[in-house]
Amino acid sequence: MEDEKELSEITFLPDRVTVKAPRGETVLDAANRGGLHINASCGGEGVCGRCMVELRGGAVEASPGLYLSEEDFGKGLRLACRAKVSGPAEIFIPLESRGDASFFKKAAQADEKLTVDELAPSIREACLLLQPPSHDDNVSDLDRLSGALSEQGMNDLYMDLATLRSMPETLRAADFKVKVTVNYDPLITERESKPFGRVVCVNPWDDDDSHYALAVDIGTTSVWARLVNLATGEPLPSVADLNGQISYGEDVISRIVYAARPEGLKRLQRQVTDTLNKLLDRLEEQVPGYRRRTYIVYAAGNTTMSHLIAGVDPKNIRLAPYVPPAASWPSLRAAQLGINLEPHTLLKLFPSVSSYVGGDIVSGVLASGFYEREELTLYIDVGTNGEIVIGNRDWLTCAACSAGPAFEGGGVKFGMRAAPGAIENFLYDRKLKRHYLGVIGNSPPSGICGSGLINVAAELFRAGVVNKQGRFDPDSSSLVREGEDGLEYLLSPAADSAGGKDVVLTEIDVDNLIRAKGAMFSGYQTLVEAVGLDMGDLERVIIAGGFGKSLNIENAITIGLLPSLPVERFRYIGNGSLSGCTLAALSVPMWLTANDIKRKMTNFELSETPGYMDKYVASQFIPHTDSSLFPPPAQREEALGEG
Amino acid sequence: MEDEKELSEITFLPDRVTVKAPRGETVLDAANRGGLHINASCGGEGVCGRCMVELRGGAVEASPGLYLSEEDFGKGLRLACRAKVSGPAEIFIPLESRGDASFFKKAAQADEKLTVDELAPSIREACLLLQPPSHDDNVSDLDRLSGALSEQGMNDLYMDLATLRSMPETLRAADFKVKVTVNYDPLITERESKPFGRVVCVNPWDDDDSHYALAVDIGTTSVWARLVNLATGEPLPSVADLNGQISYGEDVISRIVYAARPEGLKRLQRQVTDTLNKLLDRLEEQVPGYRRRTYIVYAAGNTTMSHLIAGVDPKNIRLAPYVPPAASWPSLRAAQLGINLEPHTLLKLFPSVSSYVGGDIVSGVLASGFYEREELTLYIDVGTNGEIVIGNRDWLTCAACSAGPAFEGGGVKFGMRAAPGAIENFLYDRKLKRHYLGVIGNSPPSGICGSGLINVAAELFRAGVVNKQGRFDPDSSSLVREGEDGLEYLLSPAADSAGGKDVVLTEIDVDNLIRAKGAMFSGYQTLVEAVGLDMGDLERVIIAGGFGKSLNIENAITIGLLPSLPVERFRYIGNGSLSGCTLAALSVPMWLTANDIKRKMTNFELSETPGYMDKYVASQFIPHTDSSLFPPPAQREEALGEG
Repeated sequence: MEDEKELSEITFLPDRVTVKAPRGETVLDAANRGGLHINASCGGEGVCGRCMVELRGGAVEASPGLYLSEEDFGKGLRLACRAKVSGPAEIFIPLESRGDASFFKKAAQADEKLTVDELAPSIREACLLLQPPSHDDNVSDLDRLSGALSEQGMNDLYMDLATLRSMPETLRAADFKVKVTVNYDPLITERESKPFGRVVCVNPWDDDDSHYALAVDIGTTSVWARLVNLATGEPLPSVADLNGQISYGEDVISRIVYAARPEGLKRLQRQVTDTLNKLLDRLEEQVPGYRRRTYIVYAAGNTTMSHLIAGVDPKNIRLAPYVPPAASWPSLRAAQLGINLEPHTLLKLFPSVSSYVGGDIVSGVLASGFYEREELTLYIDVGTNGEIVIGNRDWLTCAACSAGPAFEGGGVKFGMRAAPGAIENFLYDRKLKRHYLGVIGNSPPSGICGSGLINVAAELFRAGVVNKQGRFDPDSSSLVREGEDGLEYLLSPAADSAGGKDVVLTEIDVDNLIRAKGAMFSGYQTLVEAVGLDMGDLERVIIAGGFGKSLNIENAITIGLLPSLPVERFRYIGNGSLSGCTLAALSVPMWLTANDIKRKMTNFELSETPGYMDKYVASQFIPHTDSSLFPPPAQREEALGEG
Repeated sequence: MEDEKELSEITFLPDRVTVKAPRGETVLDAANRGGLHINASCGGEGVCGRCMVELRGGAVEASPGLYLSEEDFGKGLRLACRAKVSGPAEIFIPLESRGDASFFKKAAQADEKLTVDELAPSIREACLLLQPPSHDDNVSDLDRLSGALSEQGMNDLYMDLATLRSMPETLRAADFKVKVTVNYDPLITERESKPFGRVVCVNPWDDDDSHYALAVDIGTTSVWARLVNLATGEPLPSVADLNGQISYGEDVISRIVYAARPEGLKRLQRQVTDTLNKLLDRLEEQVPGYRRRTYIVYAAGNTTMSHLIAGVDPKNIRLAPYVPPAASWPSLRAAQLGINLEPHTLLKLFPSVSSYVGGDIVSGVLASGFYEREELTLYIDVGTNGEIVIGNRDWLTCAACSAGPAFEGGGVKFGMRAAPGAIENFLYDRKLKRHYLGVIGNSPPSGICGSGLINVAAELFRAGVVNKQGRFDPDSSSLVREGEDGLEYLLSPAADSAGGKDVVLTEIDVDNLIRAKGAMFSGYQTLVEAVGLDMGDLERVIIAGGFGKSLNIENAITIGLLPSLPVERFRYIGNGSLSGCTLAALSVPMWLTANDIKRKMTNFELSETPGYMDKYVASQFIPHTDSSLFPPPAQREEALGEG
């Protein structure tokens, strides 16, 4: 028997970190001691299979099992939590197996709120045991109902004709024991809100007090929906699907152009409601029959999406001086827009600030909660239309910048959305001059998504393959070559790729990325300067959207997309827009706050703001012409200290 | 030459009044001196032709002319203002030629209001010269509009989706010079009214400031409509037509029964809107293109008519304990009910008090103005459903009584509506034991209308042809005979009648009349007693409806339909319901007053009120079992003095 205290050198690739490990220690623990975090959701029990590593040299003690076929085992694959040190070894940690705390530093999740301290939905249900009418008391049915509601503190009610038509029968069929659903709609004015009650429907009384609202985020790319149980305050899991309008253009501008065609507006309106209707069908699996008990929808989208779902022509959003028809919306009926909900179900659209800072941003700011905190916060939503909000509980400024589609896979030769087959992670081995790819779904790569583009560009920049101007150095790597559009970098040869074609990154792709990140960065700069502050004053950066979660913060700073701040100041919130809708559904004060946020936000039209163009031009480098804005990470805190 | 001072005896028929008249005096003046008033609208100029009389004996000096053909002249017809006394003569004054001040005493017209002191319609038009948007000022179109309206004091506005959809184009097409029509809808609650503004539509600015409301009275029998110019406060002439629902039953009960059939409610709803639509077409002749500038409709009807036009099932109105679905109504859209007006045109239905005291009564009380006066007033609307209101500015009570259809020509063998051919006036010559008929349109009689029935019954009662119990005395007149339904009185032999049949009044007809008048009278009695007063305390009696104008007050007292009060206490208002709608259109305070009136009225269900049945039984005589209630006219003032 060998000495158990004997230490073996275990070298982890691609990081080239070497750890001295005692015989019998698991590879997982050895990697942890070396500061390399490997996913192990099950806590090292060998049951989740997420800690797969690859034995590249030497040996470990292990055997095939649940997650390892004989064939995989033969190829060198091992579960890090089950493989034990038995001597020196070289072990490769695939990108997919790396934990969040690896050197791919990502933002922590923000303290996103999805619940409220006090449940106060606009929808209220009142169970009424009415005295049946008699000769001594034969007021109208409507007066009887209003009187009983008034006793429960609900005054000033309005009932529409459709409800009025069915109500007398309902009262009698239910023996005058009914449940009345009321929506207390705050009429919002500059100074005050007046509650304005609307009887949504009258149903026979029953024991089931569950009733729902729907939260809906209408994204240009995806539509999300979530049921919110108003009786318990509990939000249910969300469902999502691609916005059917995508067939008519990827971004808001192409949608606006399409809406101008004959029947175009109508078709786009129907596409998005069709998408939503499919989601609503899926929600039936969560709560069968929920529609009957769903009384209101809170929906948010960018300004164009809001107009399209409401069937209001968005054309002026695109024409200078960018005047949207509406920035706040009347109460609508969901069914009136073609949404498959009951005729009485209401729909409230979040207010927007301007043509390019929409209800989704107002809703996201609501969900992030920074509007009520002291710390100076930058809130960004990265996309073709990038939105920026800077402020705190005292003030809010916002702007939109036209980043172009690079972050969403547009204008990039092999650009694609963050879907299976998209290169998302990328690591360049400067010694071997080769790279490792992290592909969504662990499948052969077919393209590169937005966050992948940032990671590839950052690694290649650090490796000297791409220079400050975004040009490739042909001598830096054998993978740089002349392609049909100029120099390109070979990410994946045809033989390894899903489409049977070489997947490459071109200089033009990098140019588009630089334009996109520069548009965003010069946006933050302009707003920060407009209020007399500088970047270092930002105490918190919140990144909204699906992008935020997968974004590598260091890499985004490296290319100049994010300001150079300590990683711990960054937070991401998932779908902030959907979360804000959820909060509004749960609480009228939250809805009123959303309207306050809208009113408080000072909108800057960047293209009209002096200095923006200069800043934009200066940002067209990696990371920036002004290198003092981007000190090396080690000097960052120091630089901020001076700032 | 004969002496000009020679006096001739002129005997006027059927009154048998003899006047001594100098030669050359006009027959008109002679009749006047005898206390007999002959119509002479033109003041005796011989140009109106309304003072036609018939020379029955002797001679007068006259010649044919504009209004008298040779043939008429040959028959003895003369114009009283042109015929001069030339010797003794017997002259018959046809009922049609009798002035209002004849012994056919009618009520004077009430001080019905059709205009308001201060024009304050809920509809307001604001001309806005908006600053076109620029880069420095690119708020949404809706915010721009709201801001400008706010500067004109119009806050808290709501714009619906349809208006929002068309508004951006209108703004630009009109170069941002627009006229915005707003409806300030008072949300009425128990204690206060909150203005709630709704932008009705946005139009290009123009110089034409005319804009209209429509006042509509939805009667069971007829529908009336009137345009009201909101710029000037001027009501235009009304138009009317039979309610198309008549094909489905004459009274509200038969309509309610019909509504229960499959498609019945829908058909009745369409019938009344079709009728209204025909009237709206006729209004085009008054103001071509008025529809585009008509923004609101104020409509009143009885409770059943209100439900039918709103498409709400009225069945519970008919079933004890007589609970209507609604007594006040949400704001509706006229187009939503199938009325041919612009999609944005609003419709407000007057509130009702109970199932049988409807919005038409509330509206009529508003128009009569007695709700703000000190004098104790009885307001009645005589019909199949008779409505009674008693009160003054301090209190109001009301009741409905089921009079049966006698007053509207129903349940009477030759009953008909007050249309050409209906016997309306009737005079019995006790000496000759014959009668004279006044027929609407001066045509051969085909039947007898409600007021005719009252006049016939009163005259025959005074002549002893009909006794206290409503029985005919076969010995009183040769015109009393045995008919197929028992005793009957021959009003017009077949040869003189339009239908080629004898027109008769039967004992059954008189029974029905007694039941009808008794139901009304015991209604007043019950209400008067309920508040601790008696009939003599009534300082004013207002008779509403078309009936009021043609009703002979003395005759109505004679049969016991009206309380025995001096004729000068009686007033009629025409279509009080239509007038009330007109006032509401002109002034929001008037509309709020209508709602106050509704709330102030204490409704009595007569059938449930102790004593009503006894009073009803006691009233089943002519005029009443309690003759002290009906002293002879000469003793009336005295009797009241004792009361």
